[in-house]
Amino acid sequence: MNILFIMYDQLRFDYLGCAGHPHLETPHFDRVANMGVRFTNAYVQSPICGASRMSTYTGRYASSHGAQWNGFPLRVGEQTMGDHLRKLGMDCWLIGKTHMKADAEGMARLGLEADSLIGVRQAECGFDAWVRDDGLWGEGPDGFYDEKRSPYNEYLKSKGYAGENPWADYANAGLEDGHAASGWMFKNADLPANIREEDSETPWLTSETIRFVDQAKGPWCAHVSYIKPHWPYIVPAPYHDMYGPNHVPAAKRDRVELENTHPVLKAFMDGKVGQAFQNEATRQKVIPAYMGLIKQCDDQLGRLLAHLEETDQLNDTMIVLTSDHGDYLGDHYLGEKNLFHDPSVKVPMIIYDPRPTANKTRGTKCDALVESIDLAPTFVEAAGGSVPDHILEGRSLMPWINGDTPEWRAYAVSEYDYSATPIGPGLGLEPRDCRLFMVYDGRYKLMHAEGGLRPMLFDLQSDPDEIHDLCKTDQHADLVDKMYGHLHSWGLRMSQRVTRSEQDIRDMRGQSVRRGILPFMHDGSEVHDELTEKYRRAVSQNHIKDLD
Amino acid sequence: MNILFIMYDQLRFDYLGCAGHPHLETPHFDRVANMGVRFTNAYVQSPICGASRMSTYTGRYASSHGAQWNGFPLRVGEQTMGDHLRKLGMDCWLIGKTHMKADAEGMARLGLEADSLIGVRQAECGFDAWVRDDGLWGEGPDGFYDEKRSPYNEYLKSKGYAGENPWADYANAGLEDGHAASGWMFKNADLPANIREEDSETPWLTSETIRFVDQAKGPWCAHVSYIKPHWPYIVPAPYHDMYGPNHVPAAKRDRVELENTHPVLKAFMDGKVGQAFQNEATRQKVIPAYMGLIKQCDDQLGRLLAHLEETDQLNDTMIVLTSDHGDYLGDHYLGEKNLFHDPSVKVPMIIYDPRPTANKTRGTKCDALVESIDLAPTFVEAAGGSVPDHILEGRSLMPWINGDTPEWRAYAVSEYDYSATPIGPGLGLEPRDCRLFMVYDGRYKLMHAEGGLRPMLFDLQSDPDEIHDLCKTDQHADLVDKMYGHLHSWGLRMSQRVTRSEQDIRDMRGQSVRRGILPFMHDGSEVHDELTEKYRRAVSQNHIKDLD
Repeated sequence: MNILFIMYDQLRFDYLGCAGHPHLETPHFDRVANMGVRFTNAYVQSPICGASRMSTYTGRYASSHGAQWNGFPLRVGEQTMGDHLRKLGMDCWLIGKTHMKADAEGMARLGLEADSLIGVRQAECGFDAWVRDDGLWGEGPDGFYDEKRSPYNEYLKSKGYAGENPWADYANAGLEDGHAASGWMFKNADLPANIREEDSETPWLTSETIRFVDQAKGPWCAHVSYIKPHWPYIVPAPYHDMYGPNHVPAAKRDRVELENTHPVLKAFMDGKVGQAFQNEATRQKVIPAYMGLIKQCDDQLGRLLAHLEETDQLNDTMIVLTSDHGDYLGDHYLGEKNLFHDPSVKVPMIIYDPRPTANKTRGTKCDALVESIDLAPTFVEAAGGSVPDHILEGRSLMPWINGDTPEWRAYAVSEYDYSATPIGPGLGLEPRDCRLFMVYDGRYKLMHAEGGLRPMLFDLQSDPDEIHDLCKTDQHADLVDKMYGHLHSWGLRMSQRVTRSEQDIRDMRGQSVRRGILPFMHDGSEVHDELTEKYRRAVSQNHIKDLD
Repeated sequence: MNILFIMYDQLRFDYLGCAGHPHLETPHFDRVANMGVRFTNAYVQSPICGASRMSTYTGRYASSHGAQWNGFPLRVGEQTMGDHLRKLGMDCWLIGKTHMKADAEGMARLGLEADSLIGVRQAECGFDAWVRDDGLWGEGPDGFYDEKRSPYNEYLKSKGYAGENPWADYANAGLEDGHAASGWMFKNADLPANIREEDSETPWLTSETIRFVDQAKGPWCAHVSYIKPHWPYIVPAPYHDMYGPNHVPAAKRDRVELENTHPVLKAFMDGKVGQAFQNEATRQKVIPAYMGLIKQCDDQLGRLLAHLEETDQLNDTMIVLTSDHGDYLGDHYLGEKNLFHDPSVKVPMIIYDPRPTANKTRGTKCDALVESIDLAPTFVEAAGGSVPDHILEGRSLMPWINGDTPEWRAYAVSEYDYSATPIGPGLGLEPRDCRLFMVYDGRYKLMHAEGGLRPMLFDLQSDPDEIHDLCKTDQHADLVDKMYGHLHSWGLRMSQRVTRSEQDIRDMRGQSVRRGILPFMHDGSEVHDELTEKYRRAVSQNHIKDLD
């Protein structure tokens, strides 16, 4: 069996037909959901691209791997799903984005050549790159945001698109009155992108995926990682005008959120992103483009499924659909991601397992608390391995997929490090204190903030839209304590003993005695007979007098 | 300035003259204390050789580096004081023991050659080895406990000592009626070791140190790491009969400790080591030998100090004296180390800084809560560097040495992983639940046990001998909560963000805008003038029509 592990970027959990969106139809996502299991409570370990992905790829919490924000390098030697799967004889390929930043300093310290096989895999987060393109080719006075080469820009140039950065001038610009108009600007979000649809990012990566699949020898895991529907919010025709203001759901927000607001939440609300999305005109421009981008993703998923079907691979390919985080889109007076309301931290998670063992769960949904770090162990188990649970902190989802009801985690955890934003200095905090933690037990969601700030708490049973922060009063101290109990247990978890497994430890018990470490005996009669002979070596005839 | 960083193994904090021992005179330790500062509240991060040393060498807590017990390899890439000092132009040498176990699997995964300079340093915990000898050459039916070569055994053979393992047959055997008698056995602890005193382990390593010092070009840090006074408890003449039963302090224990005893404490009391030391005859044999070993260490320290003086290096060498943990020696019905009573977890810590900046603290003591992980940052600062506090979790002691009174930590933390002992299975615990944590705030000492066991709490102000476990009743819930508050804060500490410093993060703020990431703008009027030109690139004349 092969694994097609598809990640979309910034795709909200509820912007799919199968997840109940009132206007957006996504028949191909829905088809995969009908073929497999849709996990309705899937949480990312950090609501930002880089940290979330490093958690998904390593199967470890953000504070365990340490790459807690975009551009924080993943420390050299940290193991990823590529390392685990390759040991099991399964290749692990990348097609698209990872947001991986290599630990160049650590690699140099260990003498790893950047262009060696090992060095390249370290730099590519353990993947072999069929194509790596992180999809953000912004350029400013200090140069490109991303200094690597862009295979997508190279593709566009090969197709005749002009200039140094056709990603900016075509794929992410609108076309207005015969002129390109920057896709960065909301006012242009309803324009058709200045590009042929088939050359835009999502079809291009789909073509790359088909090209990969057609030549690959299994077993393989392919991480197909689309940049969309991430901003810039602009989409080519015909997707640019499929949706309009009448398809834009009302923002989930309430003026009560503006009273006695948690200082970090308030800072995000007051930032330029929050301000932009508090303007309803922004939402009405942006959300139809966002929906168009998703619709295009769905059509391209259909194209990929059709290809697998035509080439008789659908019965031999596990398909996983998920995202790295959501998008507030104006809910809670916020844009982007960053905090732990469901629109930001909850993601789609659909898994189709073609094997007969999964037959009884096809088309079902599962409400268990799932974390993105569960994917790596799921893949290890799907590839026939046993999960190295001294390294991987997630848990295999295979029992759910096979219709079992395993003992399961009592809470999900997510983290967010906002030290690189202007908010920390605004609150007078040092970088290390700019850290947030979420604990969610399926009903209550606690947000803890380092730096001496108060927590937030929501009851998603009585308040599913997460409007009423129960920490605005002191009336829920017992609940807060209970949720902190979970967080504190988690804080003391074993996360770095990665060089010794549970079984290794069981096996090492008692070994030192059999290797001659015999302290705390009176006269040796305590040792077993089988140890006696070696023990007697130490009471031999050799003695210092012989030397005199 | 050079740094002579001397570690003894299993040396209790209170078995020194300057620490108030009633019978043991240690004029050379006392001399260094008079030349520098004696830290009276120094705690190791784990009361067992391997884990404690990995913390001291990395400057990081045991659950941060993950090598939480003897023989758990230190993960490849984990940085040590050698890495930090070498960057500052200071060599970092090892003379003696580290208990380092290389992460051979990790090194192979990263393609590090075991015999390359980088590979050797990875395997030697970041040190360059002048001589590496871990000092435990026990041998049993399954072979040697330590499979490396033993420079000390090679030395003994070169001196004419016979057999394959003269460490066992001479250095660690007693001489009785012309026969060697195993030094493993307590009944032999009062015999003189079967070796010439000058060939025993402590003088040998001192000679190696002198040989090192005489050829070294500074600046260097030399970690001189003696195996003694660690067991086997046997010492050559004349040290073997310098002390007798009348010099053995009464055990610090009280029958109240045997009532309602914490299950982990009880398991250690009931183990073979605890049982052995509950026998007063054992104490009376062992403790005089232990004292003799320390007396020999003191004499050899005197020899080293005299050599530094003669070669005019005493004014140019920082001298640090400490240990990796203590020894219960029957206190609390226990032997060995393992738990967090002071005889186990508290160590001597004496620092002589020859520079005039330290003049005002010479001969003083400092009662601040010091951790062994403070040494690495102290050395970094002594070598002229600034402390990379995103990696090193300890704090430089230089302010104390210079007579300042810095803001300081409110509590010390230590950890102990007993998963490899028989105690875990006896309590029905999985390996990952066999973990203990100590939090000590200078008055109260809490021990937390994973696996659902109750904590222990001592008030060292009213109960300095730590006899009365306040958690035997529920009367101190508020105190327990307060101490747990410290532990829980510590559990959420930032420990793995080792690839980005606080300053790196401050420097990266706002950079993405200057690299063309311009989301969440209405029409671009929000960007500064200096960004306008590059921004305009995205609203150029290029458009898709040109291709048609």
